[in-house]
Amino acid sequence: MASESKFVGWLAYDESSVAGNMKWGVFEPKPFTEDDVDIEITHSGICGSDIHTLRSGWGPTMYPCVVGHEIVGKAVRVGSKAQQERGIKVGDRVGVGAQSGSCLKPECAMCSSNEEPRCLHRVDTYNSIYPDGSKSYGGYANYNRSPGHFVVKIPDELDSADAAPMLCGGITVYSPLKKNGCGSTAKTIGIVGIGGLGHFGLLFAKALGAEKITAISRTSSKRADAEKMGADVFIATNEDHNWTEKHSNSLDLIISTVSSSDMPLSGYLRLLKLNGRFVQVGAPEDFLPGFSAFSLIVHGVNISGSLIGSPSEIEEMLQLAAAKRIKPWIQKIPMKSANKAVVDMAHGKARYRYTLVNDNATSDEA
Amino acid sequence: MASESKFVGWLAYDESSVAGNMKWGVFEPKPFTEDDVDIEITHSGICGSDIHTLRSGWGPTMYPCVVGHEIVGKAVRVGSKAQQERGIKVGDRVGVGAQSGSCLKPECAMCSSNEEPRCLHRVDTYNSIYPDGSKSYGGYANYNRSPGHFVVKIPDELDSADAAPMLCGGITVYSPLKKNGCGSTAKTIGIVGIGGLGHFGLLFAKALGAEKITAISRTSSKRADAEKMGADVFIATNEDHNWTEKHSNSLDLIISTVSSSDMPLSGYLRLLKLNGRFVQVGAPEDFLPGFSAFSLIVHGVNISGSLIGSPSEIEEMLQLAAAKRIKPWIQKIPMKSANKAVVDMAHGKARYRYTLVNDNATSDEA
Repeated sequence: MASESKFVGWLAYDESSVAGNMKWGVFEPKPFTEDDVDIEITHSGICGSDIHTLRSGWGPTMYPCVVGHEIVGKAVRVGSKAQQERGIKVGDRVGVGAQSGSCLKPECAMCSSNEEPRCLHRVDTYNSIYPDGSKSYGGYANYNRSPGHFVVKIPDELDSADAAPMLCGGITVYSPLKKNGCGSTAKTIGIVGIGGLGHFGLLFAKALGAEKITAISRTSSKRADAEKMGADVFIATNEDHNWTEKHSNSLDLIISTVSSSDMPLSGYLRLLKLNGRFVQVGAPEDFLPGFSAFSLIVHGVNISGSLIGSPSEIEEMLQLAAAKRIKPWIQKIPMKSANKAVVDMAHGKARYRYTLVNDNATSDEA
Repeated sequence: MASESKFVGWLAYDESSVAGNMKWGVFEPKPFTEDDVDIEITHSGICGSDIHTLRSGWGPTMYPCVVGHEIVGKAVRVGSKAQQERGIKVGDRVGVGAQSGSCLKPECAMCSSNEEPRCLHRVDTYNSIYPDGSKSYGGYANYNRSPGHFVVKIPDELDSADAAPMLCGGITVYSPLKKNGCGSTAKTIGIVGIGGLGHFGLLFAKALGAEKITAISRTSSKRADAEKMGADVFIATNEDHNWTEKHSNSLDLIISTVSSSDMPLSGYLRLLKLNGRFVQVGAPEDFLPGFSAFSLIVHGVNISGSLIGSPSEIEEMLQLAAAKRIKPWIQKIPMKSANKAVVDMAHGKARYRYTLVNDNATSDEA
């Protein structure tokens, strides 16, 4: 059934697609190889990346494009090598996140150290080109075909609709939290931006054992929600003119999920303790603002970024989510309403993540 | 002789001092304790920090102020504890850099790990306040009194006039080069800004075993000099409009010594290889410019800063300089001409560092 060479999905033909103008139609996936897995998609999260890509915000998109890189569904065809490497069998509930390819060569410093997202030959799950020259298409569709190395099994404890947005939104914050010692060397954590990524930041910081979690937003409109997600302190930067002084020197680690360049970066840096770390995961379409070099020089602050996470990190995150019974705040939307959902997402209406649900999803999960 | 409670030096009374308006006069050093060393100053380097401080560029200066934190001279009075801790004896040739105090408590994470410059109770060699409430005064003077923990011995192989500018200018680049693996994990090194700090960057990168050194300046006016100092590649950013493309992805580590905020930061970041490191040591008086978050997120670039170095790092640097016969490019100026030297320094005329020389310096060193 999924060995067809034509899939159907929501095709974006130009920048107007972001205004709710995607068209349902046929597209041709990569040619099947023994490395691949075909997934009958039941759920597909809507990620901020989808919006940026639909409108060519990060550079020209290779239209036609099917976005969506938080894919969950049923493995319906599994290449022999994929089965061997990943133990995936037909019928398994599986997912694929934002990355679906890298060189995977033993001599690649990145691929050989669980840093696949930084491999120079990274292939994105959509709007990208596989080594064979074919184009990658994402999850607003009935089927997805991805190399098995990037396909993960979904633990039984997790609902598909909950697991889907973790595959990009969740891992994007989980990876830098874990790598920067959240709960061990980094005890006081700040999360900037309480949207889809930020809400995962609060949930995972708590699950990883942070002692104090500070949510940082423009206004206090999301204060109550953030506190329910685990925030101990809430800063509304547009409302408290004294926020940098009041909370200065209080955080070991900040994860910034903001994807607008209009952010008070210098203020954020002042919230960090000596030698504190600021990790940017949101990707604005224009430049980050300037900031004081004294934060770097005198205060020892370190600025870095993080890009999704490797398949093994995704598996680790899903196990933690299953063990800690993490329940993301999502809203389910029928796949047929993807255009409206994209418009709502672009207008910041998601509380806090949308999961598109296909008709084939079983009722208890849909 | 140096047990006097009045020293004399070049006093700055207001911001006009930077225009060559320092006045020679008496000042009162900190009260002598058994921790202290009195130094009869023979040499005092002129550092960019002196210029920023004279004009209150980094914030209001506590006038009257005597600047200068690259001090070399003869120990003429040594407190018993200083002698015990550091082995300094009267008559030794010693130096003190930009830091002359920190808490030094065993429970201080910084002081107990050779990170004295990041101690929250750091005292600067001038324009700072000791715990006893007295003010610190720098090296444009006849004598300096500093706590012995921050006084280092000068190796016999080094001229005093050469050693002086290493004590701030040298260590400011040596410390981040060493800490970021120059010559081991970081083989290709970029030095931004070919001034006093930058020239030390080239010299020390070579001494530490860098495989390829790239000098980055606005114009090609210093190309020949930089090549003599060890640069293998020279980039003139104002002259080669294609410089980011041509040299992209070529450097493991960049040390930026530029202290003007008008720098092409995004371009510098593009010169770095995957997971490359950018370390800012120059401290502009206003904000660093904005830059693309993609450098952080996709390219894994890390931005940090570095502040001088600990006494043990300074000793290590001096030993390397002695062993490798490092010869900085300096010009000696009589102490009596400090006002003119300051003006020339502010106008970028130093090639590449000025050392003020007191009349008491022996002729072979002066």
